[in-house]
Amino acid sequence: MDKPYVIGMDIGGTNTVFGIVDARGNVLSKSAVKTSKHQDINLYIDEIYKELSVLIEKAGGISKIKGIGVGAPNGNHYTGNIEYAPNLQWRGVIPLSKLMSDKFGVPTVITNDANAAAIGEMTYGAARGMKNFIMITLGTGVGSGIVIDGKLVYGHDGFAGELGHTCSIRNGRLCGCGRHGCLEAYASANGVARTAKEILQNQNVDSLLRNTPIESITSKDVHYAALQGDKIALEIFEFTGKILGEAMADFVAFSAPEAVILFGGLTKAGDYIMKPIVNHLEKNLLQIWQGKIKVLFSGLKESDAAVLGSSALAWEI
Amino acid sequence: MDKPYVIGMDIGGTNTVFGIVDARGNVLSKSAVKTSKHQDINLYIDEIYKELSVLIEKAGGISKIKGIGVGAPNGNHYTGNIEYAPNLQWRGVIPLSKLMSDKFGVPTVITNDANAAAIGEMTYGAARGMKNFIMITLGTGVGSGIVIDGKLVYGHDGFAGELGHTCSIRNGRLCGCGRHGCLEAYASANGVARTAKEILQNQNVDSLLRNTPIESITSKDVHYAALQGDKIALEIFEFTGKILGEAMADFVAFSAPEAVILFGGLTKAGDYIMKPIVNHLEKNLLQIWQGKIKVLFSGLKESDAAVLGSSALAWEI
Repeated sequence: MDKPYVIGMDIGGTNTVFGIVDARGNVLSKSAVKTSKHQDINLYIDEIYKELSVLIEKAGGISKIKGIGVGAPNGNHYTGNIEYAPNLQWRGVIPLSKLMSDKFGVPTVITNDANAAAIGEMTYGAARGMKNFIMITLGTGVGSGIVIDGKLVYGHDGFAGELGHTCSIRNGRLCGCGRHGCLEAYASANGVARTAKEILQNQNVDSLLRNTPIESITSKDVHYAALQGDKIALEIFEFTGKILGEAMADFVAFSAPEAVILFGGLTKAGDYIMKPIVNHLEKNLLQIWQGKIKVLFSGLKESDAAVLGSSALAWEI
Repeated sequence: MDKPYVIGMDIGGTNTVFGIVDARGNVLSKSAVKTSKHQDINLYIDEIYKELSVLIEKAGGISKIKGIGVGAPNGNHYTGNIEYAPNLQWRGVIPLSKLMSDKFGVPTVITNDANAAAIGEMTYGAARGMKNFIMITLGTGVGSGIVIDGKLVYGHDGFAGELGHTCSIRNGRLCGCGRHGCLEAYASANGVARTAKEILQNQNVDSLLRNTPIESITSKDVHYAALQGDKIALEIFEFTGKILGEAMADFVAFSAPEAVILFGGLTKAGDYIMKPIVNHLEKNLLQIWQGKIKVLFSGLKESDAAVLGSSALAWEI
């Protein structure tokens, strides 16, 4: 193969990680810079260029690179821009794709981080060989990437797949988006912490979680308590899994996927979260789908997932 | 064009209508038979053949026909079968596509009626030129056909697009599918009648609807009362539009369509139903989509819509 490698770059609110990847999903090399270091996007691109050039040289030079795939919050595949990302310091519309391809001289494509994760699973992970699946990322927020007929769904404007902002509970919790009751307000790491606080404040029950100051409880603490058989922790996962299972039943009614694939911090809870999800998904599915929808955890190694996901985009250039 | 015509055939619980259609969506001729007349599917096909042959001869013979498109409840595009359709008298799996193509000697494709309606709108109706839209049929039930990137979404098993069975109200009304709270239980013609009954039974208010025996109130009666300014009728449309607008906001978060297109009996209520739908859709949309999603009524003449929708499938053979 003339150009055996692609570059994957994941822009997070804190760090930007990037690496060089081969067609089998091996990460040859990777590195990172602080996303928030540069208010000026051009200085940010300069620093990325400096760091990445070292990796590119080691891989045999830019002539070996097919393209660059970028996953970024509010990354729009159609325009190549990052548009009004609330968690990044650059305001307005950033033509990131153009800035990168001008700098490096290779084609660059961009999409949001959850879409990148979906392409990553399809190319190297749990969705290999699947043409219809839904990726749900359970991190600080809840993101999603939808694959139909082997292609990522971008929709009319490039912003399709905002399943974290479908309504789980009408007039429910305030979400970061300003609306109420979104799936994200319940099924994200933050959502799990909020559920913990609500239960501990409203119920007069013993729990290991009471050993942690209520404002600093995280989903990790809940997992840790569950491992020790804490009933409140189990109740929190049951509630979270119910919300997710109910939501997923509606997603299935939309696109009839072969599988729903879960990624992100919350999946570390393993069966504590998987069992209630599957239980409530099955309870809420239309009969034709009962017992037929796979629910899987990501097949990508967590430390490589961000780079792999975004790199996979570049194979499609 | 060698084969300038297609045949469209719509199998309903009561009637099967079929006709010959040209590329511009003109229905050259059409006819119908009773779907329920024949318990034996082969006798049914024989009768369709007898009736359709007359129309085919008038159009210049079977050599002018590119193919047959069939819309049918539970029609599966992948298998060509009608599978376990609760409203048809044939039990189990009916290989309708094969029966038709064997009989007529031209390719036959099948899908469910709402999908056929979506293809019809894209080919001849309100969605001409659109690549991303959602069709919602508001009839006895609530059906849907989803078009992404110019293609109908069939999903992994061919049954995608069951938006009538997404959950509008958790633990809400019993739906025909056996589950509770489905959109269909509220936004179908039946759902509107149920809403009318609930309000009239639970509220001690005057209404023109009290002139009709409560068990026989239909969505038409509600429309008629609304035309005369009846407050309860307006409240019924407001409630129905709220349920639909809320549901549609979640559908938009899935596929970011250019438009949602509404078809079926309930749309005859015009602005009485459209205004609350748009109002509640806008209230529930994520900010990026506010003011950007078109909500349109079908662009097909009602009497031709069933034949046009299914015929449009045959252009894609």
